[in-house]
Amino acid sequence: MSAQSPRRVLILDTTLRDGAQSPGVSFTVKDKVRIAEALDSLRVDIIEAGNPGGNPKDAAFFADPPQMRGAKLAAFGATRRAGVSAEIDANLSALLHAKTDTLVLFGKASTFHVDEILRADLGENLLMIEDSIRFLVSLGRTVHFDAEHFFDGYDIDEDYALEVVRTAARAGAASVALCDTNGGELPWRVAEAVRIVARTVDVPVAIHCHNDGGTAVASTLLAVRAGADIVHGTFAGLGERCGNADLCSVLPTLMYKMGVETSCADTLNNLTTTARLIADAANLELPRNMPYVGAEAFAHKGGMHVDGVRKASRSFEHIAPELVGNERRLLISDQSGRSALLDKLYAIAPDVSRADPILAEIADRLKLKEMEGFSYEGAEGSFKLMAMRLLGRVRPHFEALDFHVQASKPWAGDSSQAYIKIRVNGTEEITAAEGTGPVGALDRALRRALTVFYPDLSCVRLVDFKVRVIDSFATDSMVRVTIESTDGVKTWGTVGVSRNIIEACWQALVDSVEYKLSALS
Amino acid sequence: MSAQSPRRVLILDTTLRDGAQSPGVSFTVKDKVRIAEALDSLRVDIIEAGNPGGNPKDAAFFADPPQMRGAKLAAFGATRRAGVSAEIDANLSALLHAKTDTLVLFGKASTFHVDEILRADLGENLLMIEDSIRFLVSLGRTVHFDAEHFFDGYDIDEDYALEVVRTAARAGAASVALCDTNGGELPWRVAEAVRIVARTVDVPVAIHCHNDGGTAVASTLLAVRAGADIVHGTFAGLGERCGNADLCSVLPTLMYKMGVETSCADTLNNLTTTARLIADAANLELPRNMPYVGAEAFAHKGGMHVDGVRKASRSFEHIAPELVGNERRLLISDQSGRSALLDKLYAIAPDVSRADPILAEIADRLKLKEMEGFSYEGAEGSFKLMAMRLLGRVRPHFEALDFHVQASKPWAGDSSQAYIKIRVNGTEEITAAEGTGPVGALDRALRRALTVFYPDLSCVRLVDFKVRVIDSFATDSMVRVTIESTDGVKTWGTVGVSRNIIEACWQALVDSVEYKLSALS
Repeated sequence: MSAQSPRRVLILDTTLRDGAQSPGVSFTVKDKVRIAEALDSLRVDIIEAGNPGGNPKDAAFFADPPQMRGAKLAAFGATRRAGVSAEIDANLSALLHAKTDTLVLFGKASTFHVDEILRADLGENLLMIEDSIRFLVSLGRTVHFDAEHFFDGYDIDEDYALEVVRTAARAGAASVALCDTNGGELPWRVAEAVRIVARTVDVPVAIHCHNDGGTAVASTLLAVRAGADIVHGTFAGLGERCGNADLCSVLPTLMYKMGVETSCADTLNNLTTTARLIADAANLELPRNMPYVGAEAFAHKGGMHVDGVRKASRSFEHIAPELVGNERRLLISDQSGRSALLDKLYAIAPDVSRADPILAEIADRLKLKEMEGFSYEGAEGSFKLMAMRLLGRVRPHFEALDFHVQASKPWAGDSSQAYIKIRVNGTEEITAAEGTGPVGALDRALRRALTVFYPDLSCVRLVDFKVRVIDSFATDSMVRVTIESTDGVKTWGTVGVSRNIIEACWQALVDSVEYKLSALS
Repeated sequence: MSAQSPRRVLILDTTLRDGAQSPGVSFTVKDKVRIAEALDSLRVDIIEAGNPGGNPKDAAFFADPPQMRGAKLAAFGATRRAGVSAEIDANLSALLHAKTDTLVLFGKASTFHVDEILRADLGENLLMIEDSIRFLVSLGRTVHFDAEHFFDGYDIDEDYALEVVRTAARAGAASVALCDTNGGELPWRVAEAVRIVARTVDVPVAIHCHNDGGTAVASTLLAVRAGADIVHGTFAGLGERCGNADLCSVLPTLMYKMGVETSCADTLNNLTTTARLIADAANLELPRNMPYVGAEAFAHKGGMHVDGVRKASRSFEHIAPELVGNERRLLISDQSGRSALLDKLYAIAPDVSRADPILAEIADRLKLKEMEGFSYEGAEGSFKLMAMRLLGRVRPHFEALDFHVQASKPWAGDSSQAYIKIRVNGTEEITAAEGTGPVGALDRALRRALTVFYPDLSCVRLVDFKVRVIDSFATDSMVRVTIESTDGVKTWGTVGVSRNIIEACWQALVDSVEYKLSALS
């Protein structure tokens, strides 16, 4: 689809270094290992995994780095300090202690930063870069150079910025990265500078963009067109402030739209899984509308769009979701129209026709429930139950006669109890259970009582639990609870909504067991 | 900062139309009015507020539209259907019933879509566009034309795509918008096509990008450079799938970096407030790392960055946050280093020096709490209390001897009760309260007991309540509760973390009242 001749670009992932600078993110060494392994499986070329001189956790990681199958782990650090010889500098010593041959060294490319922040002499800054690279290279290391604040520097003093990258290349750097550290450069300015640098140095040029202007992905793509041979980026939107260039957008666009080759050719159908795994390790939810890998990246809601995608998927999709391991979703909502509803119902009740008036009733109920705050987008179990109840095809498997949960101080151990009384076919069962909190106690009591009648439930367990406050009346806010259950084979989501968080949990728990008992799973 | 000569660009916001297509979003008519008023205050030129022919809520909105001070409200709809005359077409009739003079009409610009989705004759499609525009213009309406799937169409059959926009212009359209409906076009291809169209038609060209490739903002900016005079976009990342071009990025970049004039010159310092208000109406949290307007867009965490910003703000900021009504934040985290901690402490304890060993103790405690799952980024009240407790400068104002909450079926009314026993200066107070849920009951009981001793607390109320599941052990998951309290003058956030949601609420509630009683607010 592109006029470019086939080119190869290397991928440097900095989720574990620049990404670790994200507000609210704090990786353990175990998280770092897990993420490095996921990136290695995706076959990125270089994994910049931390700054051993600046962070004890990163030093621990590089003291015993995980074995990679193909990726090179890189340790990141500053050049020697002003006035200190490279041989005895603490920054460089920390890098030499890292058990890896690949290093990324950063230095300042902006006269403003050298003058005002580093407060060093401009000539000394060049020597700091040159000495540090020569010293590390002489000890057998591969040294990539990050020209920090390159674009700001280029705007202020083009000659000095270019002299910095020329110095690094001359000293033996394996590549020079042009960093838009503040993230504010315009995409076409990025491309212009990359074009000039690519003509100026005879080592590969890398591009390192931040997203403060919302244009990091585009700047990275334009930089590749202008001659950059290495791209830096992160996963899951991580990175200082607004994040780095998102590799989940950069990779598929490079490969599927620009015809650029990367080492991820055979693995890109794991992109979505990799992104979710990394977000999970970072304790973040991947933004639902994230390009290519978000849960809604291929979700269709408006009636016309749903209809179009049913006729021809490319009508409203820029690529096939399978190419990045994502999937198409036709959303259940009051805007989705009959055709999407029919698709969903067909899976559970293939005999219901498009003409059946029950469809309108189900659509009305859906609209009503959504107005109350329900959302079935992650809770198809509850949606199917609702539809099957209206169709008269499921009956309740039990009746809750009474229940009661309590929580008390002190909090140590199982400080919550639940008592429950249910009736199944005329037989009553009363039981109790305890838990760390009231929700766990309630879940256990309900399962214990029901397993007497339905032994199949013993294999069902909850795997996920989400709470969302959907309006704001302080402690009386409306709360939506979504849970995910599994029986070891299938997984299903159910939902409850109430101003009482215990009631919302109860609704979701009841739907979870009813879904299993109704054999809808 | 740009070489462009001053140009003026019109802003069309489609948050209420394309944005309403976002998964999970459902605006009420009241929400729509609130959002339209916010956009009008920001002085966008055109507010595309809905599709009255496709949605009863939008028809209700346009039957009685809110009064705008400067913005034009536009109703959106399809051209006449194939084979139906414009005079009797239902789509056009719905638009004529809308009480507004400004309309946006969409038609297909891709032969694939006309053939496969619309299943109409290519010539008839051109006539549908021409007739519809002529008819509406003859009745005095201003009609903007959206060439849907323009870029896909341009790639397949350039001549036909250009004929569509020429037809619309000839029929009297006030502008022609080139829509990247699937959101997958490469930025430089967008720019090339805009350049050609701007030479081809003599009406203003608009650009309408979706973000499926992560490049909607950049494509929009490149389109303006290539000759587009109107930009379409949304707020808060809203729009089908991955959202439309984000106006919160487009506007400040156009105005502050490209020297382009818009009608928002005097209001852009309200951009952040407007974005938050719209996100709030859409029941979304604005992504924290959103360019320009996110809570973390100007947040600094790494020690070196915090230090740099303290020396000169532009060292790590692409623009001054005040220009868009946002603010700099030096984050409290184990990576923020002493200088950020000092800044925070200075506000409450100006006498603590950089050399005081208590600083290291506070930093250690912070690290420990963050490892347990606490986050003080939205809960500075709890952070200050923690620091002041370590400094020995606050003492507890009460002791909780006992409490107990319960929730029972049936759920109607106040189905939860809390009992509490506290001691203040040797005097015990025992009381109880009820609520819709256990959290509300607990909050009321605590306040009731404390107000006996501290009447000042009667003016304190909770204004926000957030729950986040921070790890996944199903119903025993670790939960973080963040609450926001106000005394009518000041507002403060506090936090609690536990596997028992009631305990997490209790911690946050206790900090909320202790913060007020310690006169830290």
